[in-house]
Amino acid sequence: MELLQKTFSAIQPLDRNAMRDAERRIHSLTMPDWALGTLCDLAVRLSGIAGKTPPPTARKTIVVMAGDHGVTEEGVSPYSRKVTQQMVANMAAGGAGVNVLGRLNGAQVLLADFGMAERDGELVRQGKLIDCNVGKGTANLAKTHAMTREAAVRSIENGIRLAHNLADETDVFATGEMGIGNTTPATAIVSAMTGREPEDLTGPGAGLARDAVAKKARIIKDALARHKPDANDPLDVLAKVGGFEIGGIAGLVLGAASAGKPVLVDGFISTAGAMLACGLCPEAKSYAVLSHASAEPGHALMCEWLGQRPLLSLGMRLGEGTGAALAMNLLEAANRILTEMATFDSAGVDAKNA
Amino acid sequence: MELLQKTFSAIQPLDRNAMRDAERRIHSLTMPDWALGTLCDLAVRLSGIAGKTPPPTARKTIVVMAGDHGVTEEGVSPYSRKVTQQMVANMAAGGAGVNVLGRLNGAQVLLADFGMAERDGELVRQGKLIDCNVGKGTANLAKTHAMTREAAVRSIENGIRLAHNLADETDVFATGEMGIGNTTPATAIVSAMTGREPEDLTGPGAGLARDAVAKKARIIKDALARHKPDANDPLDVLAKVGGFEIGGIAGLVLGAASAGKPVLVDGFISTAGAMLACGLCPEAKSYAVLSHASAEPGHALMCEWLGQRPLLSLGMRLGEGTGAALAMNLLEAANRILTEMATFDSAGVDAKNA
Repeated sequence: MELLQKTFSAIQPLDRNAMRDAERRIHSLTMPDWALGTLCDLAVRLSGIAGKTPPPTARKTIVVMAGDHGVTEEGVSPYSRKVTQQMVANMAAGGAGVNVLGRLNGAQVLLADFGMAERDGELVRQGKLIDCNVGKGTANLAKTHAMTREAAVRSIENGIRLAHNLADETDVFATGEMGIGNTTPATAIVSAMTGREPEDLTGPGAGLARDAVAKKARIIKDALARHKPDANDPLDVLAKVGGFEIGGIAGLVLGAASAGKPVLVDGFISTAGAMLACGLCPEAKSYAVLSHASAEPGHALMCEWLGQRPLLSLGMRLGEGTGAALAMNLLEAANRILTEMATFDSAGVDAKNA
Repeated sequence: MELLQKTFSAIQPLDRNAMRDAERRIHSLTMPDWALGTLCDLAVRLSGIAGKTPPPTARKTIVVMAGDHGVTEEGVSPYSRKVTQQMVANMAAGGAGVNVLGRLNGAQVLLADFGMAERDGELVRQGKLIDCNVGKGTANLAKTHAMTREAAVRSIENGIRLAHNLADETDVFATGEMGIGNTTPATAIVSAMTGREPEDLTGPGAGLARDAVAKKARIIKDALARHKPDANDPLDVLAKVGGFEIGGIAGLVLGAASAGKPVLVDGFISTAGAMLACGLCPEAKSYAVLSHASAEPGHALMCEWLGQRPLLSLGMRLGEGTGAALAMNLLEAANRILTEMATFDSAGVDAKNA
């Protein structure tokens, strides 16, 4: 708990001076005022996070956190649980969506085991899979708490440490995840934190048929009724209905924020992790940039809870970090307009009439 | 008119076989079916345009078409008319928003004069400004037709020829524009083509104050009442209330489509050009990909008229081709998922349970 508390107190409000400098720069650029809209907003926000303008964005790190879920016993995913391990191998070989989109936008993709039931030890030995394991898959939340409170803390602290270890080589972090069944804990987290009924939030995840979605919603509803997670205690929520990789995501967000780095939050699962992080330390909201609107029905409420509109809305529902990988291009664009665009003065362009 | 007619008849429906091949490929990739949403749709559409899958996207060309507008006499822009030429010089030097975002996403930015009132002849001699000039600025549409019907045809034909000349070195086209005052003709075009009242469509453009927006709407309303452009005759609309660079945009869309190339349509002005192109030849709609939702109020109706949802929505209202430059990243992403993602078979990942 000590690392958690130290991390919360290290998360600073954004630097208003750097933000004002960025605003002033943007007003001077050869375009109608603020005409690049959200890119201008991003440029200011990133400057506030970095404490200087232009904010660095060159070194991009996507951390894909993997974990398994006992609740897959209940048939909440159309994929077999062993697909978690298979997809991690696919990612280690560079063949998954997050690898492709990460390469496109110049981001390194790192893999970390936060709670895989089984893993290929060779990947760990080769340094291709970082060992942050907290347990061999969560317990089945339909029957018991997903994990102990101690494991919940450990999963978050492992995420914080990972962010701190990577902070020296990273300008922009992004979260990603791989865990068959993990839309179930993510939906349970949103429902617990917002009080909205699971049947309003539960979606097909990786492709459940409609009647299976209804069953999934009932499983979540029953689990919440049985475990009664405390919305004001995110650690209680994570322990009772969460997942190890979701704790890892929360930790990565907190770790990045405490290191003064922005963190692009991927889709549905990642946003659940970000909610836990921001529930623990509201100041972290300033550092967590929502990358895209997931097609999963509960996601809009999560974005509202975090007070943000996601950058992209492309009907994506893959997870892994793919939305964050795409949005990296927009963060880079925000940097480039600050660093490369001419000013009215430098280009000899007449400003707007008074 | 001969080139126009030949161009219309050269625009083919999309290749259904190539689209089916792309769909089949996507179904085999290591992700829940269609989980990359719009990127999957784009991959299929681009395959249909190219007549093969994967569709090429490496060579990206943004054409910024410049023109001046007689209606600036009426105070419809807060910028002086000479800013058109100044911004073209800024673009030739690489300092404008479109240059910055084009470089970021690997697109070359070409400049073409379709109707500048004044230009730097040196830029033309150096090959930095392509000469497609149809006239030294349009006439003031508040008083008379913006151009003759012959000039309207010529502006479109010049755009078609430009696309055809560039087709051998281009996989993906994009439109852009520079023309102080050009939201006024663009708004007049939408109003003429849809029958919606100008006061519902007119916006601040490059930054008009609210009362000046109301005056701009009245100027457009009066011009439409006086000139009575025929919604069923896009050449009549272009001649009476259009602009030379808007004709050029329409031509670039038609030329790209007839060469079997996709064309990313930038924001408000470019979408007006695309509407003229698709009014002349509805089949061109398949080739014109709307890149972003402009902050200008009339844009949503234009997108609806074209039957498309734009890829990005970032509150941008700069024009130049900046939205198209950003969206280039998504077209490249669509290519990369087809070319780089592993399949369930190749990666040894178990598919969904039956």
